[in-house]
Amino acid sequence: MEINSPMNEKVKNWAKLQQKKYRDQTGKFLVEGEHLIGEALKAGAVEQLLIEAGRTNPFEREKEAIVCGESVMRKLSANVSGAWLIAVCTQKTTAPAGLRTVVLDGVQDPGNVGTIIRTAVAFGFDQVLLSPDCADVYNEKCVRSTQGALFHIAISRTELIPALNELKEAGVTVIGTALQGAQPLSELPVSENIAVVLGNEGQGIRPATLDICDQRAFIEMSSFESLNVAVAAGICLYRYRRRG
Amino acid sequence: MEINSPMNEKVKNWAKLQQKKYRDQTGKFLVEGEHLIGEALKAGAVEQLLIEAGRTNPFEREKEAIVCGESVMRKLSANVSGAWLIAVCTQKTTAPAGLRTVVLDGVQDPGNVGTIIRTAVAFGFDQVLLSPDCADVYNEKCVRSTQGALFHIAISRTELIPALNELKEAGVTVIGTALQGAQPLSELPVSENIAVVLGNEGQGIRPATLDICDQRAFIEMSSFESLNVAVAAGICLYRYRRRG
Repeated sequence: MEINSPMNEKVKNWAKLQQKKYRDQTGKFLVEGEHLIGEALKAGAVEQLLIEAGRTNPFEREKEAIVCGESVMRKLSANVSGAWLIAVCTQKTTAPAGLRTVVLDGVQDPGNVGTIIRTAVAFGFDQVLLSPDCADVYNEKCVRSTQGALFHIAISRTELIPALNELKEAGVTVIGTALQGAQPLSELPVSENIAVVLGNEGQGIRPATLDICDQRAFIEMSSFESLNVAVAAGICLYRYRRRG
Repeated sequence: MEINSPMNEKVKNWAKLQQKKYRDQTGKFLVEGEHLIGEALKAGAVEQLLIEAGRTNPFEREKEAIVCGESVMRKLSANVSGAWLIAVCTQKTTAPAGLRTVVLDGVQDPGNVGTIIRTAVAFGFDQVLLSPDCADVYNEKCVRSTQGALFHIAISRTELIPALNELKEAGVTVIGTALQGAQPLSELPVSENIAVVLGNEGQGIRPATLDICDQRAFIEMSSFESLNVAVAAGICLYRYRRRG
């Protein structure tokens, strides 16, 4: 099979996956580039693999590819320069292996969301919970920022208050980052049975969410009290990393 | 004075500042948005302030603004939606107040460079040294990622090997991040008289640069050994933050 027209019905449907609305409706999303698609294949998330005419499929053992013309690939790619390999993936997420949780309360930037997911995997967290107003995990920029980590961790979009209450009932300590009424991060006890809450880039954690936190931590800074939220997440998740 | 034509000679020259070549030649750069321009004004870095016709200058006490038509503002803005306030700034950088240094060896992404500059200021570092092949600090995305921190710290682009040798002679301990032949970050002694070296997103620190480091640190991860370089920087700079 070879598809050369960007007006082909299948192509039109795949292209719709560039919009969150259609990703939500179908439970699918697009992934570009060899490294990310390799991770998606390992996770069994690839539904269709699309390759530009004239290219060799680096995953021919794992998955047959549909050959597409350059104009089709350009239409499906989020990058102005196009892509030669694109996968239509399913938003399958595994059940968490434990309760170690990263919680995002209104994180807006898809690059920040993706970078935090990547960091959560690096430090041995089991799941990432996102408030409904966070950036979409399946946005191209977010997927790229995860570097494939999204295929290695349970991710759910949910109302945070009931989810946090459930975690607390299960014995998890909930820690939120805050500038006021908080203790220095380095003075809080290290624990592994933990949920770490990060807030919006400008506003931080919502008051109602902060109220549920068992502990409030601030990252000790010397001046210019301002950190990117993914950097703040990195510092906190490293502190509460899975040890041994 | 009001400028309405995007073909005006001044406008054409300002627009050239969107290219690194012209920023290097003139020592100037463009800054967008009220918050960043406020920081630039405090630092005395604003040469010209440009405002869209019909808007009120929020800094009228500090700086008179040149009124420009919408098409002029659109031409000068790096954002598709344009900007209503733009400053032409000078790349003045202060002499470092001390030797606490962040060193970037081939960091390519302007967002990463900007985020690391912001983090360096937060944790009380005195200067940032960039190898000649790092992303340009005065790139719009980098400036935005610093959130204005670039006006609060000494920044220089230089050959790293002689610069690091000079720091070592002055008694500074040079620490590089590495995955191999390195000690766990949390087991290295905390010191304030320090230079922390971060490397390229894909390749890490160049071998020749790593050879000069007094210590090699790895960030303890549990799996998926991969962190964004700005996140890795955040974890290291927090560890070596200025205390008290």
